Amino acid sequence: MRIWHPCTQMKDHEKHPPVFIDRGQGIYLYDREGRAYIDAISSWWVNLFGHANPRITRAVGEQLSRLSHVIFAGCTHAPAEELATRLLALVPAGLTRVFFADNGSCAVEAALKMSHAFWRNLGQPEKCRFIYLSNGYHGETAGALGVCGDRLYAAPFAPLIIPQIEVAGPECHACPCGKTRETCDAECFEGMQVALDANADTLSGVIIEPLVQCAGSFRMHPPVYLAKLRRATQAAGCHLIADEIAVGFGRTGSLFACEQAAITPDFLCLSKGITSGTLPLSCVVTTDAVFDAFYHDYADDKAFLHSHSYTGNPLACAAACETLRIFEDDDVIAANKPKIAHLQAAVRQRFAGHRHVSDIRSTGWITAVSLAADPEKGRPFDERDRTGFRIYREAVKRGALLRNLGDMLYFMPPYVITLQEIDKLADIALDAVEAVLG
Amino acid sequence: MRIWHPCTQMKDHEKHPPVFIDRGQGIYLYDREGRAYIDAISSWWVNLFGHANPRITRAVGEQLSRLSHVIFAGCTHAPAEELATRLLALVPAGLTRVFFADNGSCAVEAALKMSHAFWRNLGQPEKCRFIYLSNGYHGETAGALGVCGDRLYAAPFAPLIIPQIEVAGPECHACPCGKTRETCDAECFEGMQVALDANADTLSGVIIEPLVQCAGSFRMHPPVYLAKLRRATQAAGCHLIADEIAVGFGRTGSLFACEQAAITPDFLCLSKGITSGTLPLSCVVTTDAVFDAFYHDYADDKAFLHSHSYTGNPLACAAACETLRIFEDDDVIAANKPKIAHLQAAVRQRFAGHRHVSDIRSTGWITAVSLAADPEKGRPFDERDRTGFRIYREAVKRGALLRNLGDMLYFMPPYVITLQEIDKLADIALDAVEAVLG
Repeated sequence: MRIWHPCTQMKDHEKHPPVFIDRGQGIYLYDREGRAYIDAISSWWVNLFGHANPRITRAVGEQLSRLSHVIFAGCTHAPAEELATRLLALVPAGLTRVFFADNGSCAVEAALKMSHAFWRNLGQPEKCRFIYLSNGYHGETAGALGVCGDRLYAAPFAPLIIPQIEVAGPECHACPCGKTRETCDAECFEGMQVALDANADTLSGVIIEPLVQCAGSFRMHPPVYLAKLRRATQAAGCHLIADEIAVGFGRTGSLFACEQAAITPDFLCLSKGITSGTLPLSCVVTTDAVFDAFYHDYADDKAFLHSHSYTGNPLACAAACETLRIFEDDDVIAANKPKIAHLQAAVRQRFAGHRHVSDIRSTGWITAVSLAADPEKGRPFDERDRTGFRIYREAVKRGALLRNLGDMLYFMPPYVITLQEIDKLADIALDAVEAVLG
Repeated sequence: MRIWHPCTQMKDHEKHPPVFIDRGQGIYLYDREGRAYIDAISSWWVNLFGHANPRITRAVGEQLSRLSHVIFAGCTHAPAEELATRLLALVPAGLTRVFFADNGSCAVEAALKMSHAFWRNLGQPEKCRFIYLSNGYHGETAGALGVCGDRLYAAPFAPLIIPQIEVAGPECHACPCGKTRETCDAECFEGMQVALDANADTLSGVIIEPLVQCAGSFRMHPPVYLAKLRRATQAAGCHLIADEIAVGFGRTGSLFACEQAAITPDFLCLSKGITSGTLPLSCVVTTDAVFDAFYHDYADDKAFLHSHSYTGNPLACAAACETLRIFEDDDVIAANKPKIAHLQAAVRQRFAGHRHVSDIRSTGWITAVSLAADPEKGRPFDERDRTGFRIYREAVKRGALLRNLGDMLYFMPPYVITLQEIDKLADIALDAVEAVLG
């Protein structure tokens, strides 16, 4: 094979060649033989409004004939200006400036660099450390890996990474404080407070994936944790970086996860759904306070120097503008509510009480099902059996791209899925599980 | 302003708002008032075949109606497969595998990670260090900044960066060995050899921008330096990473700069021109030897885990395929030769002997003009005067986006520029210089 695929042991493809996708339409991907697959995880959590969405296709096509790209230093253009205006009207109050990049990793890198350089510009260069939550995932460039607790992705590259400060995050699926979602007041926050106090002098910021650590086995925490973190970071005099790359744009039920805790972070990192799954684009949204720390006479040498050639790409910005217009025109957040309820119920209905299901959890559009050899005794499957991977293969055979995460299945479909299609997807998932474990 | 532009002191925009670009056509960008600007630096060195190029526009438009994007783990698609096939037929012999990413920084990050993990998989985890040349520029994520000698971009973020090993690179504009291009046998390579010997046990690889350090004030070196570096890295048992992000796809006169030294690197990083300036895309091209070190049974835990959501984006791949078809159909490398000669002569004709010109140098399409207060005495302009920036502003007024690099002007236009337009651009440049310095 000529192509080396991401996040893949290429030897797996000896037995299972990659599915050769020819076209997409709505929630379906079609291979060259015309077989249809439900895109059950929205092509790595990016697609919101379906493949070949006519509105997004038209918007990108129109921009294509005007201006595909222009240098974004010294120049600007309508799609970027409209996108910034629309975004700033939607993000939590107090976020006023948009810095563009190409993907999630680079948005995180830009936020980390901006956070530290902010303190440096204010005369506190010692503030250069970051706290992240265990099992956090923030991208795979070296700076982003420094705030990743997921060792699978980071360990082979350890000598290339400056490890930041890990703090145990919420483990709500097995709460160490014995609380439930209803009784929880984020008692587990104590460890974070200890770390904030211990590192106050050198802390630049804390980075978190609000409400759901997606790559971190879909650990989910309640908004109260975020609210506490916002208050505590303010008290500690360090930044809060909200990485909503995966959870932004409606995934958690609200447009942004931070809304559910009624907080404004100092940096909001966005990507994935921003173009509704068509083109790479990311951004960091931040405050006047941060912007002003870099706004100086040129000779003062305080500008934020970070750039990528295709920063602010007009085609990607056009896709993002149309994405936000769809949110507005179709009142998507409200329209999603019954679908979200149906998806959560459909999965629970099929998997609750299953002899190999150890946990089912949901936040908005994200529903995850943990599988185990013996849930009652807490005995996982033997890793070498690759149970989750085999279920994924069975689901592909049955017409759903339901990519596993270890021995966990999860559902994160495009928002245009219908109630009937949700049932069909849940049926395929159960069939695939039974085919492997039955 | 809502948008925070890259690589920009935003306060500069108080006096000079960003040029609001409305559309592009060929070498021209047009603002909302219909004023035309020659895109003299190809929008940060990315545009090859002109804005709104009908072939590229059509190719992207056709792909847009089929499939904008699909997860690239477990799936593949025609544009990526064709692109890989075409690329591998064009790159230096021995490069056989293509790994995709979204931008140059991420290609460099992937190459650095792959290089180290190669040694780790082979049981030599201590090989984790990299050599780079002074004034090298390889991107602005933390790992890429570790191999950047350009302190302007890296210094404010020092605590976030693991500094790699800097070796003095060629300084051909003022050769310390007293050689000329004709008499040079890369005598200055000695320092590199010393560093290779001193770090042999821990070296993972050496990264270089072949032939031209673009962001590094357009320092240019002869192919013999590359040839020596290839032999020396092989002898030292470490990788050679060729960062052709800026110089690839014809910029130096040949399709890839490495060709001029007849070498095959272990990693070739490509981006920028790969989509002819329309969409973000990058890749790392590598060898079977590297690929095989990761090709193991899943349980061996040797896969290369690195991914971005939009890896292998079909729209960007479609643009890249059409770019390579144009290279083939129009015999672009041959067709470029008279234009390159004309551009080099046109600039030299106007600037050679100018009282403020200290050096003019060219490699292929890239021609740079260094300005100084007193070239004979080696006295630069006072930095606070921002001479280069003022010339850039004057050029904008006269209809050319001729973005300076410090007090250096450079020319790197799209390949579709005509001989007449080259003359016009050179005239504007001289007028702008005279307006500031005359």
